[in-house]
Amino acid sequence: MKLGVLGTGTVGRTIATALVAKGYDVKLGSRTADHAGAREWVERSGDHASQGTFADAAAHGAITFNCTKGEHSLDALRPCRDALHGKVLIDVTNALDGSKGFPPSLFVCNTDSLAEQIQRELPDTRVVKALNTLTASLMVDASRVPDTDVFVAGNDAEAKASVAGLLHKAFGWQREHVIDMGDITASRGLEMYLPLWLRLYGAVGTGIFNIRVVKG
Amino acid sequence: MKLGVLGTGTVGRTIATALVAKGYDVKLGSRTADHAGAREWVERSGDHASQGTFADAAAHGAITFNCTKGEHSLDALRPCRDALHGKVLIDVTNALDGSKGFPPSLFVCNTDSLAEQIQRELPDTRVVKALNTLTASLMVDASRVPDTDVFVAGNDAEAKASVAGLLHKAFGWQREHVIDMGDITASRGLEMYLPLWLRLYGAVGTGIFNIRVVKG
Repeated sequence: MKLGVLGTGTVGRTIATALVAKGYDVKLGSRTADHAGAREWVERSGDHASQGTFADAAAHGAITFNCTKGEHSLDALRPCRDALHGKVLIDVTNALDGSKGFPPSLFVCNTDSLAEQIQRELPDTRVVKALNTLTASLMVDASRVPDTDVFVAGNDAEAKASVAGLLHKAFGWQREHVIDMGDITASRGLEMYLPLWLRLYGAVGTGIFNIRVVKG
Repeated sequence: MKLGVLGTGTVGRTIATALVAKGYDVKLGSRTADHAGAREWVERSGDHASQGTFADAAAHGAITFNCTKGEHSLDALRPCRDALHGKVLIDVTNALDGSKGFPPSLFVCNTDSLAEQIQRELPDTRVVKALNTLTASLMVDASRVPDTDVFVAGNDAEAKASVAGLLHKAFGWQREHVIDMGDITASRGLEMYLPLWLRLYGAVGTGIFNIRVVKG
């Protein structure tokens, strides 16, 4: 299966590397067609790894992960509109505004979310918010935080099922731990979890944690 | 020990009832000195239950719980300023704006929080945000969601320790499951969890759940 990964930062490279390791054919997309970090990633990742522009990666993927920095996501995705027509985009981003120091704030929240902005920008793409609630190394390896939960939100039930299937096969997330939160507006809650996550990072002393929803 | 509880809604009555059951001497405060719901609560709660205005309850309590509706909290607390001087106020509120339908939004978030507004309104009170992340019946009975976590945030370490002690003695929250999130600005994350909590309510099918932080 061919997958696209947009963004060459820690999240993008971690996801792309984990997908190649599982046998997927992955194109890593960046702003320029010949990004040094992407080229280096391709060189050490073997035959199933390639790189190109954001649009190249989006055209390549049956499903594409958006791992660009939140503040650049709309600009990165605009040229992918045709390539993503009718396809599933997994939006992993957070709307962190790093410009104002600690505690960081969000540049969109409450009555809107970044995932909703993306869905509006790409009306013919089936956007599914997922994996933005944990650190990159845990996104791709559920076994490190057993029986904890991840979430999907989006307007298309079939797309969410595809994403849950991919999260299971590629990263080990059991279906019962992929909680369907509803339509894309549920991304508000998922993105507004970030300020809590950041404080938990400080309180717990590591970013290597996740949450489990426990029914009483 | 004498405690004050401000607010006669579900949260206030649930907390006040649980505290009386544990032997605390509780005054339930409302807008008027002779609130029908508060009087009814006193009648069925025995000798350690009394009622009065918000200021009466705040004057009574060595520690006071703010369980008023978020949108009315500042108005309710303003007359309590003298009574709360130097004392600990446990702020259980959420900044839910119910006026705009579903999904509900927050009337303050991101770069501020209701707990911070309260702390600014009552500069000589030691405000500790706590228990706003779960439904009332679980706040007062940790045993129903074993090994899950609650959080405290506030500027005064001693006040947070007092609150953690009270949560342990009164409601069964083990010290290791009361996570200290830092200063009062951490309330932003705790209050911004609400939109996620509300969606989880829908996804899980009940409000009787809590989260556990699992380190990898």
